Amino acid sequence: MLRTRFTDLCGISHPIVSAPMANSANAGLAAAVSAAGGFGLIGASKAAFDPARPAWLRAQILQIRSMTDKPFGVGLALNFPQHDELLSVALEEHVAGVVISFGDVVPYVDRVHASGAKLLTQVQTVSEAKRVAGAGIDVLIAQGVEGGGHIGEIGIMSLLPAVLDAIDIPVLAAGGIADGRGLAATILLGGDGVLMGTRFVASAESGSGQWHKDAIVAASTDDTVRTLSYDLARNVPFPDGIAGRVIRNQFTEMWHGQEGELIARRDELDAEFAAAIGSGTPGLSAM
Amino acid sequence: MLRTRFTDLCGISHPIVSAPMANSANAGLAAAVSAAGGFGLIGASKAAFDPARPAWLRAQILQIRSMTDKPFGVGLALNFPQHDELLSVALEEHVAGVVISFGDVVPYVDRVHASGAKLLTQVQTVSEAKRVAGAGIDVLIAQGVEGGGHIGEIGIMSLLPAVLDAIDIPVLAAGGIADGRGLAATILLGGDGVLMGTRFVASAESGSGQWHKDAIVAASTDDTVRTLSYDLARNVPFPDGIAGRVIRNQFTEMWHGQEGELIARRDELDAEFAAAIGSGTPGLSAM
Repeated sequence: MLRTRFTDLCGISHPIVSAPMANSANAGLAAAVSAAGGFGLIGASKAAFDPARPAWLRAQILQIRSMTDKPFGVGLALNFPQHDELLSVALEEHVAGVVISFGDVVPYVDRVHASGAKLLTQVQTVSEAKRVAGAGIDVLIAQGVEGGGHIGEIGIMSLLPAVLDAIDIPVLAAGGIADGRGLAATILLGGDGVLMGTRFVASAESGSGQWHKDAIVAASTDDTVRTLSYDLARNVPFPDGIAGRVIRNQFTEMWHGQEGELIARRDELDAEFAAAIGSGTPGLSAM
Repeated sequence: MLRTRFTDLCGISHPIVSAPMANSANAGLAAAVSAAGGFGLIGASKAAFDPARPAWLRAQILQIRSMTDKPFGVGLALNFPQHDELLSVALEEHVAGVVISFGDVVPYVDRVHASGAKLLTQVQTVSEAKRVAGAGIDVLIAQGVEGGGHIGEIGIMSLLPAVLDAIDIPVLAAGGIADGRGLAATILLGGDGVLMGTRFVASAESGSGQWHKDAIVAASTDDTVRTLSYDLARNVPFPDGIAGRVIRNQFTEMWHGQEGELIARRDELDAEFAAAIGSGTPGLSAM
């Protein structure tokens, strides 16, 4: 057991959070992390509108409650559809914490706190950390450029100390942390815990396909690229300064660095992009 | 005093190296770092050919010897002119260590060792770390994307543990390390010390202009950009995967992201670029 401001605030044993990855972070994964003493998150957001999504989230929450009585939470992306409805489900079900990222979290502070939940948000810059910490956020996640998925531009070894110097609320480190060494370094730097995504995608409990888990296990530190190609192909923009880190594959070899052409031909290639990204193959899908 | 494989190998008291930055890392800075128990480096390479450069380097080495009897070294970039002649000067003068980076260091192993010097090199990927560690390099510098100056693409929190897992020689961490916390985190992760550049540019002893030191002190973690714009404007290419991190200014606002136009108009703008970059002003020069 490792006590930090974060474990005290959330009543958990280990300062480890599983990130709310779309597809991967389902009830099984979140329940396993929470039952083990960490803080599990459901990835509520989905890039495409799905009328069944709010009911799915409610069922996921109930499923976790059937598996563990430990605290857990829900993660939302403000640039994805239905975030307001999904947030309402999470708050109605009184989850212990909500992570709201990729947009302005400040307008949600009172609503989340009224439900009793803690409000966490990811930041990628010191200026954003200062802005939101002053607005009543409970826990900041300082996210480094090393991370898989959607990330900013600053490395965690620079960002974490700078954020800790700038604000006075619990701070978790995210980005490129995959084992106990990263947690130990985070604690040494003054952080309150870690949020890990990629490492949990490749867990038995994750909802990701086996092809995805296998690709992560086979990949080395050298094999990723930070790219806008998938976001542009899906036409789901993230805020300025955010791009997606994925394992390099046929899709990124073709489109990374060809953003102008990708945008110009997006209407023409829309069905092809959707089929490629949705194919569940390591050459074409985002990993 | 903090003993590591690196301090033992080089006979120094503190596992701290000052990077061989062009302009900044002169005899005064290197002597101060070495005299204080670290390992000071002279930045020997200069982007433009200068027939007086080898004699300048020899004079710098002699100047350090007049200031301290502690070990120090010389750093060279293989993509810059006169590297072979500068290396000969360093080896003739029997400096304690040579850092050779931004090109293939392997052909230099025997020549450096024949002089009695230790050979260090910077790597930005795990695969390059494996390749050179097997060829007789004495110390690796794993350089993260956080660093100022020329850097790769991987954050140090990911790169350092992965390099340490892959090879069995002393490893220093570089990139975004600016105080004791970064050194402590490096040691905790299993590293043997740190190389710091930007922090030493802004020291009293550095050869950089006051405008440059002031700009670094005034800049925050959010204020840099990783860009090819200066390298392209100077027409001094670095290896694939390497770009330069600088403080954002008028020059990068104008040219970062406009690489195609920059290359197309380079001949026409050559004199203008040289004047801008050489102006010694925070708006136009690389910082």
